[in-house]
Amino acid sequence: MSKLTAQEIETKLLRFPDWEYYDNAIHAEFEFENFKDCFSAMSRIAFECEALNHHPNWTNVYNVLTITLSTHDAGGVTMKDFNLAEAIEHIVEPEE
Amino acid sequence: MSKLTAQEIETKLLRFPDWEYYDNAIHAEFEFENFKDCFSAMSRIAFECEALNHHPNWTNVYNVLTITLSTHDAGGVTMKDFNLAEAIEHIVEPEE
Repeated sequence: MSKLTAQEIETKLLRFPDWEYYDNAIHAEFEFENFKDCFSAMSRIAFECEALNHHPNWTNVYNVLTITLSTHDAGGVTMKDFNLAEAIEHIVEPEE
Repeated sequence: MSKLTAQEIETKLLRFPDWEYYDNAIHAEFEFENFKDCFSAMSRIAFECEALNHHPNWTNVYNVLTITLSTHDAGGVTMKDFNLAEAIEHIVEPEE
């Protein structure tokens, strides 16, 4: 899994408006109604992480979840990060 | 719920060797076997947080969980933080 270039990342991010690229990783912050809703989303995301065998650096404070994705072995952002970001988007903001 | 003094906090921390006091909060880091074990502990802690109506600032990276506790309304560390720290200790390191 090879590291994407900054240009490739910025192009892909056009489809991920919640995410930003800096510090060699992609980052998003999600706000929920309350802690229960936030942790419920985290639980669903946790299952996806295991399924994809890829894990985030994430922080929760009450109803806010901050997620940073990068691929340690590749030293930057790879398709693994975008695959997980896509799974997270489906959980956090399911389409009607 | 009133803010504890630094002296009161340091005395209480004698019973909580995993925890340190700095930046007006108490902090601990726990390492697990893997992500599944770590997130399982987080799920159990999440239920305690709801029961105690007190929530941490916590960060997870794979098998490592970093927790910061303080009481926002009191502007520092209160008994609410020690009550949650105690619940966390029972989950993370259950007595035999």
